[in-house]
Amino acid sequence: MPVSRPSGRTSDQLRQVTIERHYTRHAEGSVLIAFGDTRVLCTASIEDRLPPWLRGKGEGWVTAEYGMLPRATSTRTQREATRGSQGGRTMEIQRLIGRSLRACIDRQSLGERVITLDCDVIQADGGTRTAAITGAYVALVDAVNVLMKRENLRRNPIMGAVAAVSVGVYQGEPVLDLDYSEDANCDTDMNVVMNDGGGFIEVQGTAEGHAFRRGEMDAMLDLAEKGIAELIGLQRAALDLG
Amino acid sequence: MPVSRPSGRTSDQLRQVTIERHYTRHAEGSVLIAFGDTRVLCTASIEDRLPPWLRGKGEGWVTAEYGMLPRATSTRTQREATRGSQGGRTMEIQRLIGRSLRACIDRQSLGERVITLDCDVIQADGGTRTAAITGAYVALVDAVNVLMKRENLRRNPIMGAVAAVSVGVYQGEPVLDLDYSEDANCDTDMNVVMNDGGGFIEVQGTAEGHAFRRGEMDAMLDLAEKGIAELIGLQRAALDLG
Amino acid sequence: MPVSRPSGRTSDQLRQVTIERHYTRHAEGSVLIAFGDTRVLCTASIEDRLPPWLRGKGEGWVTAEYGMLPRATSTRTQREATRGSQGGRTMEIQRLIGRSLRACIDRQSLGERVITLDCDVIQADGGTRTAAITGAYVALVDAVNVLMKRENLRRNPIMGAVAAVSVGVYQGEPVLDLDYSEDANCDTDMNVVMNDGGGFIEVQGTAEGHAFRRGEMDAMLDLAEKGIAELIGLQRAALDLG
Amino acid sequence: MPVSRPSGRTSDQLRQVTIERHYTRHAEGSVLIAFGDTRVLCTASIEDRLPPWLRGKGEGWVTAEYGMLPRATSTRTQREATRGSQGGRTMEIQRLIGRSLRACIDRQSLGERVITLDCDVIQADGGTRTAAITGAYVALVDAVNVLMKRENLRRNPIMGAVAAVSVGVYQGEPVLDLDYSEDANCDTDMNVVMNDGGGFIEVQGTAEGHAFRRGEMDAMLDLAEKGIAELIGLQRAALDLG
Amino acid sequence: MPVSRPSGRTSDQLRQVTIERHYTRHAEGSVLIAFGDTRVLCTASIEDRLPPWLRGKGEGWVTAEYGMLPRATSTRTQREATRGSQGGRTMEIQRLIGRSLRACIDRQSLGERVITLDCDVIQADGGTRTAAITGAYVALVDAVNVLMKRENLRRNPIMGAVAAVSVGVYQGEPVLDLDYSEDANCDTDMNVVMNDGGGFIEVQGTAEGHAFRRGEMDAMLDLAEKGIAELIGLQRAALDLG
Amino acid sequence: MPVSRPSGRTSDQLRQVTIERHYTRHAEGSVLIAFGDTRVLCTASIEDRLPPWLRGKGEGWVTAEYGMLPRATSTRTQREATRGSQGGRTMEIQRLIGRSLRACIDRQSLGERVITLDCDVIQADGGTRTAAITGAYVALVDAVNVLMKRENLRRNPIMGAVAAVSVGVYQGEPVLDLDYSEDANCDTDMNVVMNDGGGFIEVQGTAEGHAFRRGEMDAMLDLAEKGIAELIGLQRAALDLG
Repeated sequence: MPVSRPSGRTSDQLRQVTIERHYTRHAEGSVLIAFGDTRVLCTASIEDRLPPWLRGKGEGWVTAEYGMLPRATSTRTQREATRGSQGGRTMEIQRLIGRSLRACIDRQSLGERVITLDCDVIQADGGTRTAAITGAYVALVDAVNVLMKRENLRRNPIMGAVAAVSVGVYQGEPVLDLDYSEDANCDTDMNVVMNDGGGFIEVQGTAEGHAFRRGEMDAMLDLAEKGIAELIGLQRAALDLG
Repeated sequence: MPVSRPSGRTSDQLRQVTIERHYTRHAEGSVLIAFGDTRVLCTASIEDRLPPWLRGKGEGWVTAEYGMLPRATSTRTQREATRGSQGGRTMEIQRLIGRSLRACIDRQSLGERVITLDCDVIQADGGTRTAAITGAYVALVDAVNVLMKRENLRRNPIMGAVAAVSVGVYQGEPVLDLDYSEDANCDTDMNVVMNDGGGFIEVQGTAEGHAFRRGEMDAMLDLAEKGIAELIGLQRAALDLG
Repeated sequence: MPVSRPSGRTSDQLRQVTIERHYTRHAEGSVLIAFGDTRVLCTASIEDRLPPWLRGKGEGWVTAEYGMLPRATSTRTQREATRGSQGGRTMEIQRLIGRSLRACIDRQSLGERVITLDCDVIQADGGTRTAAITGAYVALVDAVNVLMKRENLRRNPIMGAVAAVSVGVYQGEPVLDLDYSEDANCDTDMNVVMNDGGGFIEVQGTAEGHAFRRGEMDAMLDLAEKGIAELIGLQRAALDLG
Repeated sequence: MPVSRPSGRTSDQLRQVTIERHYTRHAEGSVLIAFGDTRVLCTASIEDRLPPWLRGKGEGWVTAEYGMLPRATSTRTQREATRGSQGGRTMEIQRLIGRSLRACIDRQSLGERVITLDCDVIQADGGTRTAAITGAYVALVDAVNVLMKRENLRRNPIMGAVAAVSVGVYQGEPVLDLDYSEDANCDTDMNVVMNDGGGFIEVQGTAEGHAFRRGEMDAMLDLAEKGIAELIGLQRAALDLG
Repeated sequence: MPVSRPSGRTSDQLRQVTIERHYTRHAEGSVLIAFGDTRVLCTASIEDRLPPWLRGKGEGWVTAEYGMLPRATSTRTQREATRGSQGGRTMEIQRLIGRSLRACIDRQSLGERVITLDCDVIQADGGTRTAAITGAYVALVDAVNVLMKRENLRRNPIMGAVAAVSVGVYQGEPVLDLDYSEDANCDTDMNVVMNDGGGFIEVQGTAEGHAFRRGEMDAMLDLAEKGIAELIGLQRAALDLG
Repeated sequence: MPVSRPSGRTSDQLRQVTIERHYTRHAEGSVLIAFGDTRVLCTASIEDRLPPWLRGKGEGWVTAEYGMLPRATSTRTQREATRGSQGGRTMEIQRLIGRSLRACIDRQSLGERVITLDCDVIQADGGTRTAAITGAYVALVDAVNVLMKRENLRRNPIMGAVAAVSVGVYQGEPVLDLDYSEDANCDTDMNVVMNDGGGFIEVQGTAEGHAFRRGEMDAMLDLAEKGIAELIGLQRAALDLG
């Protein structure tokens, strides 16, 4: 008998996901993505500069930065700009977002420029990093389309779609897309990033309570595959790719 | 003959101002305010702690922090959390917001707690600090009402309304509420904070091009008085104070 | 009936002001200015470099830094170099000094160089920022004269004099040039920067206690105009401009 | 036909692993672990203090810090103490080590104290984080035994063994325990942390080149299970547990 | 035949030394000391607090901080508060000053308080650290006398006088009290701190060009003994100790 | 009658000194040096870059960095990378090491490159800086020999050997090479750096308890000369210079 999730969702059910493009006007790509009450603003900024270690190689770069507004959370979190440095969790997440998005881009075709994906959490309710990756992909596509329209690129550097979701074991049962109250009480939490070819880009699983078994891992990966397929469908719809 | 403002507004006309309360769900007060294309999220967070220098005095404190999302601006600004410190402009603005809001609160009645006003610019088009002050006041009132409902306060500590607007001299003519393109090209820029009793809380005028004359200053203050009266009306409407 | 100022001065009376040039020997301009017990060392340093964003524009730059010796104040203040960053008040003040002095210089005539005005408070008794601006102007003129003598400049880039003074409302009465004990007890504090043409460069007024009225503002501006005219006379005398 | 690994090892073969206890004399636990040419010094330090957020809960804490000597690598890496902050990679790794070791300890039985595991890389040749976790476990056991001997603990807080290994897909074939030259050229890199009950504590897989398939993931997990079982055997032998 | 020093001094001649007490009014001790063109403001501040590691031991502490105004030097030096940290040279010097002054104080008699000696270089021409130590001693005595007058102390904690001077080998000849042009061209530079009993507190010698011989060291120590005896005489005169 | 040293050594006896070359494999020079229980890993790294202020001068540079593993000491020391900056003691020591090693190198012959000496303390028992200097010299020679073999240098830039030892006054008697328990209880501590020609490179003596007399200083220098001669012999033996 399945557990009753606090949200009333079935174990393989995503939260309500919405993707709003052109949310702000300055960025080349600007997407507000919501996974239920989690809301992340993802902007893609094109800059004609290169990090020093890439100069003269004829390639571009995609990088990400992650932030959380101080009151995105239920109690106020100290602003990292005031504290004087980004915390370990922030760095971990923005490195994950950067790696994930670089996996879908041909850096040679992008040419000598940088696209920065800024993912800022407006409201947090679990799964901010997976929402950020899923939304940043849409912002990245929009920014690349700006470059294509300006005829700056000969070939489209986007090699495929990327999306992410969390899965976990909640009260013994594998479930998809944990919200905060589920995440805080689950035994295992795993973030999965996949592409639209069904390949894995990142798998990061952590036993919060007790260690997880191989069988649980298999069940979580099954859920993630299902959820990510749906998310990639929603990305396509948002991008009018039908 | 009046100059033609790029926006087509008359010299004493505010931009379209909207105030959306309860924009996010965790903060005790959460307001998205727009002055035209400038959009600032203002949250008010109540915490039962005191800065060290206030302990044992039976008073509370109101403070503010200001931030700008990296791509709120037309070209990407470096994230202050990555840079490792807040810049001078940020500090100047958040100190102004804090002083302005403290001017409308009775710290004794507030009791031994801190309310932090986080003002984060989602999209910038000039006047972010005046929008922040005007929106933060509404968030502060909402937070104080939460305290009143919890019966934590004997007396309402709000002593009056506070709002702010910028005025300037654009191509020789005093104008109200400058947007970015006007601000970048004006000779003088002045930020004015007033209360609903018609008193001045802050006046900060800067000659950008040539020095301004006493007569220009008088004309700017007249415009500011008119604009702030309208903003206080909009605050009242948003707060259903009729 | 006028209030009795602690200092015994009349409401429109400056403190004893002294301006000592060539106070130290290395800097191109070096001025020790005293506004009563407030003493600030202002040096002007010429450097043949440019900030990155000015390169190739054929213009120069004038900037300022402000510091306070740890025991310039009645209790010891932590050294900012030890703390690891400049505080918000310091940044606010040095930005104000820089803007004020840039208002009197023609950056094209200055040529591709930077003049840095270091204003270090040796002893504080209120009004350190206005003393700093008034003294820094004299140091700047001395440094520019060094450049003129070296025949590095075709035209004198100094476009006029700049001086500053504080005004306030002390026990209900507008007064000029507040010392520390007046400043700590006043209702309103306003710093005014003007040029020798009677134009305003900066006006920064803050209600410390209750909001100030338009009439009080007018009276304070009158006092500032009078005080600054006297200060500009003292600058001229110090510079032997007769 | 299996690929030829640069090291000549078979695909399921660990490097030569050595574990040297009591390597330095001050720490309660001090272990030099080598995975081939990778050498990490792991010390465990007991301190009778608690992080603020744990005070009064009757529990202890285990945390980790990771560092790399500047010339542990083939080209010199900037010292993080000189740079002024720990990098994102360092933070990610030390958070992983800390979580992994906390998974094998009963914090209630540990009592109100902190054990810090410092893992400093003397020489790097791939797999520093997995060597660090495997060695830190032995140092942790030694430190706990010091506490047991001092009769500071009623019950042994160690709940089981923890070890870690990397696996990857090198030229199409899943291989165990990548050294640097394999790691730099592999398509996928996965770090796996397990306990002696066969449960998973952490799984962190990253597609470096192309995305990895479910079948590759399964094969990598099989290799990791085999390798970790051997490492736990080596830990037992080092600890004289037969 | 003796070398000709740029200053025209004989090899065992100090520069003109002046000691001006009560230079600023807030500090308990405030001394402007000049060694020729080197001018250092030394203030002594009493605070009724203790560093954490001294609490409950019934002892006091004496510490020092050193700074250099940006244009104390012939070319402008970056302000350490702007740079975000004190440099190695600054730390080295302030540690030396602190150790030197602690050598003349009985910390038990001082009681549970801290005296901080701030030594800020107004103008530099070599020997700033030795001038700082010599001046800080006078400021320390003044501060201790304030405590004695307040009847806060039962016994005078000053155990003797401390002064410092530099010596060096300039063009092959040992010389006393190097100014900047001598220091920049000398082979060896040694700073010596002694007490009024003829004991050595610190000796820090550095070969700048070639290594120095035992005989040169002996000659330098002789010069230092002579110079410090004179400086202690000047301290006594300044303190009206006859 | 001589005092009894805790270590049982005679007053002029060094601890057991071992020098192990090629301790790690990446660095051009890598030496583990032990002075008794003090163990320091010294690596020399060659880099084809120059600090900005040396560019175009045809010279090289030798610099040093010093670190202490957190549990090299009897109680854990905070990691400087976590704290965010190097402490004053660290800076003082690494500046000393750098100056000492530059004294034995001809920077013109070295050519436009930097050699960085990283001295990391694995275990501390007094005298870490003197062990670091003595070991760093051997690492430097190894690195220079790598350059010679690559035929990068026309002339060997090593001008002579450098070694260092501490001396002190322990219970009234001058002693050589203090270990931690002697250092913590001695009256005077002096670090001496000399070359193989018997010249002094650095002398840094500090009175910890009471001031030291000229006679004590002479006795300490005698001991240092003797100890350093032995250390230079050990360096020669380690370098197979016979």
